[in-house]
Amino acid sequence: MTEFYQEITPGGYGIAIKRKKTLFSEQSPFQKVEVFESDSTLGRVLTLDDLMMTTEGDEFHYHEMIAHIPMMHHKSPKTVLVIGGGDGGTVREVLKHDTVEKVILCEIDGMVIDACKKYLPTISCELDNPKCEILVEDAIEYIKNKENMFDIILIDSTDPMGPGEGLFTEEFYTNVKRSLKPGGIVAAQSESPFVNKEEIKKMYTLLKKVFPICATYTSNIPTYPGGYWAWAFCSETVEPLSYWDERRGEAITKTCKIYNKDYHNARFALPNYLKELL
Amino acid sequence: MTEFYQEITPGGYGIAIKRKKTLFSEQSPFQKVEVFESDSTLGRVLTLDDLMMTTEGDEFHYHEMIAHIPMMHHKSPKTVLVIGGGDGGTVREVLKHDTVEKVILCEIDGMVIDACKKYLPTISCELDNPKCEILVEDAIEYIKNKENMFDIILIDSTDPMGPGEGLFTEEFYTNVKRSLKPGGIVAAQSESPFVNKEEIKKMYTLLKKVFPICATYTSNIPTYPGGYWAWAFCSETVEPLSYWDERRGEAITKTCKIYNKDYHNARFALPNYLKELL
Repeated sequence: MTEFYQEITPGGYGIAIKRKKTLFSEQSPFQKVEVFESDSTLGRVLTLDDLMMTTEGDEFHYHEMIAHIPMMHHKSPKTVLVIGGGDGGTVREVLKHDTVEKVILCEIDGMVIDACKKYLPTISCELDNPKCEILVEDAIEYIKNKENMFDIILIDSTDPMGPGEGLFTEEFYTNVKRSLKPGGIVAAQSESPFVNKEEIKKMYTLLKKVFPICATYTSNIPTYPGGYWAWAFCSETVEPLSYWDERRGEAITKTCKIYNKDYHNARFALPNYLKELL
Repeated sequence: MTEFYQEITPGGYGIAIKRKKTLFSEQSPFQKVEVFESDSTLGRVLTLDDLMMTTEGDEFHYHEMIAHIPMMHHKSPKTVLVIGGGDGGTVREVLKHDTVEKVILCEIDGMVIDACKKYLPTISCELDNPKCEILVEDAIEYIKNKENMFDIILIDSTDPMGPGEGLFTEEFYTNVKRSLKPGGIVAAQSESPFVNKEEIKKMYTLLKKVFPICATYTSNIPTYPGGYWAWAFCSETVEPLSYWDERRGEAITKTCKIYNKDYHNARFALPNYLKELL
């Protein structure tokens, strides 16, 4: 009998993936970390506390969107902080921008990094890049005393429960804002617009208290709830779609499976039900 | 033990929905028609030959997109043909446009219409509208001798197998084109860009032989494979985004859960992998 991985949302539906073999499964001090080989075109799958994080087959849907939409709004992003994102996919996309001098990955759970380096090499491939510095520590503590340090901060967190919970608070967002350089931009994963309506509402209420500019962009992610995902775009000064660098945009597009200028420009157009929610 | 409806694509993954109770399940001369009550926020679910067609909870994602994107490109759509679409959702959206004088629904399987009228009233609610004429017949035959009859034709078909197969041929598309009035527009569901790559490629190759203008637009559909869906936009003369009626657009938007002007304008921006495919 075929074995299935199922992730069913509280709404009573979700994704099912044919499961072949568990490659890694251990309890870290923070969460259960698992990588399994699926019997599907999605390839290998990373889950944390049995929730889908990424798959080899569709990870680009998430990583291209969290990285390039904010990065392309900055005239010259040099210093980037990735919070969470231990699989390395966001770091990989950030490093496609030739302006970047340093990307700091601040991931609380070293076991995630190690498992992804070993079992998900197409995603974690740039974690050994000399421009990437890895800090295995709590981003909530790390960001407390920082000021004027980053051009871009990408909050590539798990859901607002478990180890990710403290990354969805007003205090955390305030510290994030203080650590931005002038002209800096934050992007944060902000759950499924169709499935996680309450979570989205709560998160944007807090973000809007902290950031004068707080917009939302969305894209398709096949293996996330509802097949659709939202990210917050926050800044003190940078409006959505206020800047575009043709040279860098063309160079990035060539390396991407989704991202291009038209797609970029279309991301802030939201469905009515999401506009009403925010 | 919880019972699940699963629709697993040939890629080895798909959707799972908690199943409560079968409300209707019969074999018509064409296909197995089933409506079940899910134990989920999706409510009732219609399947044909065990493939997901629509759910009460997310049907608007599909029906708003197949109807309003082409309808809003026409200056005054009066006569509309819906091919397939026996659940009535597309007819319901078409009739929101006050220019419409007549919509003909040509559905091969009367059992689908009857089951949806009985079990999915929020979707089928406009099938008794006096402006709607229902023909229970094969659209392939129906369209053969028509000429200069319709402003808009919406091909709201099942997948290119089983009873829907003949709706994905060059001959059929040629007959559809002949039956359009000058300035007419066709929209056709064209499968999942992420999952059904071969089917999409084949379909657009045929469409492009027939229609001088053949574009693609996409949107999110939670319960369809990959959570993402494409529609073909075809015409002899009307380019995508070449026309917009502010008054009608505002009126339609007020009735919709997704559709609005920004969302409309963003639909033709495609991911790289889909542009390469077409």
